[in-house]
Amino acid sequence: MDRILSNQNSHVKAWSKLATKKGRQENRTYLLDGWHLVEEAVKAGAKFHAVMATEEQMAEHLPDVPHGVPAFEISAEVAKHIAGTNTPQGIFAEISLPDKTFNPSYVHDGAWLLLDNIQDPGNVGTLIRTADAAGFKGVVLGAGTADVFAPKVVRAMQGSQFHLEVLNGDLNEWVDALTANNLPVYGSQLNESAKSYRDVEASTQFGLIVGNEGQGMSDVLAEKTTANLYIPLQGQAESLNVAIAGGILMFSLVSGN
Amino acid sequence: MDRILSNQNSHVKAWSKLATKKGRQENRTYLLDGWHLVEEAVKAGAKFHAVMATEEQMAEHLPDVPHGVPAFEISAEVAKHIAGTNTPQGIFAEISLPDKTFNPSYVHDGAWLLLDNIQDPGNVGTLIRTADAAGFKGVVLGAGTADVFAPKVVRAMQGSQFHLEVLNGDLNEWVDALTANNLPVYGSQLNESAKSYRDVEASTQFGLIVGNEGQGMSDVLAEKTTANLYIPLQGQAESLNVAIAGGILMFSLVSGN
Repeated sequence: MDRILSNQNSHVKAWSKLATKKGRQENRTYLLDGWHLVEEAVKAGAKFHAVMATEEQMAEHLPDVPHGVPAFEISAEVAKHIAGTNTPQGIFAEISLPDKTFNPSYVHDGAWLLLDNIQDPGNVGTLIRTADAAGFKGVVLGAGTADVFAPKVVRAMQGSQFHLEVLNGDLNEWVDALTANNLPVYGSQLNESAKSYRDVEASTQFGLIVGNEGQGMSDVLAEKTTANLYIPLQGQAESLNVAIAGGILMFSLVSGN
Repeated sequence: MDRILSNQNSHVKAWSKLATKKGRQENRTYLLDGWHLVEEAVKAGAKFHAVMATEEQMAEHLPDVPHGVPAFEISAEVAKHIAGTNTPQGIFAEISLPDKTFNPSYVHDGAWLLLDNIQDPGNVGTLIRTADAAGFKGVVLGAGTADVFAPKVVRAMQGSQFHLEVLNGDLNEWVDALTANNLPVYGSQLNESAKSYRDVEASTQFGLIVGNEGQGMSDVLAEKTTANLYIPLQGQAESLNVAIAGGILMFSLVSGN
């Protein structure tokens, strides 16, 4: 097994480039940080390009990594460099970006979360993890939304990209297609004249749009929806964090939770 | 007005120390970053020690700052240094830590959120902001929980510390006192044999405990509660982010939302 002790090593430089969208697109791969995510990728049958781990982590986990995957032992310093954080667990994998095409006009069932211009990667990752936990069938990332394979999104998703559909898409097309296929599409608004989310009966088939942290969802989308929903606030807070609002809506709208 | 252009200035050094709990305790002050928070402090009648702003921000906002507060014009570089981030808005205030003592045995009504060993400052701040939005009367930070005046907590609270009670406390004492005063206290657990949160009728007077990101709430507290609640998960995600779980529980348990 190759041992890598320097951040100047060419592999390390290549892995570091995967922190940027450009680097990921050119290489068609992204990084997983920590055994929990690597294990989820193993279970999901993801295509592995490399596993990198400190001596200790390698000893513990190499037996569970698919046979034939190139393995690199790295120093603790190199682990920090690849992770971009100070306390990485010390095991990483480089895996292929999924290569999905998905036509929304074929969607006839399930609950779908549509993210309109959500910029904070932690919010995007947490929303995807929450959609998974709420039993959603998929999440569609519209224009302006943080890239799903950015390191902070991947960390916050906690492996949910292996559990449900996570797609990029044009939300206008999605809303049109869901509507044409008789799925109601709910928007969310910070607008007391919108419909209270409490007044929507839970179901298993619908679309839910959550929008930008500051501006909310786009007006164009808001006009296309079946209804726009509002979460009544009681205190003096002016708004909820978008991931919290999304979580409350998802768990309230999906039947069975 | 003093103009400060160097990070070596003694005021700047003193403000930077307020990023640490030790610095805040010694000085009995903390920092607000951005006009939204400074404005909330003005509205709340907080005790101001200083306002620091770039030339542009000072011109825009100084008229709205209480008369007689020492004002310092700072460079964009100094603003970044004080903020500890790369894109601060450029206006800050140093205000007094609140000096509250609060005896839980006097609590006879309202909804109270108890945080048991919640370590991530973003989660703590978001939970306090969400409790505010849900109409809670207060939040009690128990042992192990991130300090409420740490910069990342302050940022995520979005000013909610001025809207509801935010206290440090011994959660064992709180649970005993609320129970003695006939308020039910609900725990939260990642345990399918616990009671579904859907089966609790919404009310306006209760305690709700949320626990550590990894380990959940302490066993000692779990044994003292009226009931421990579970959020049934449908997908393959193993858990929810603690702030999302807290948000779903708060909005479900409080009547009127």
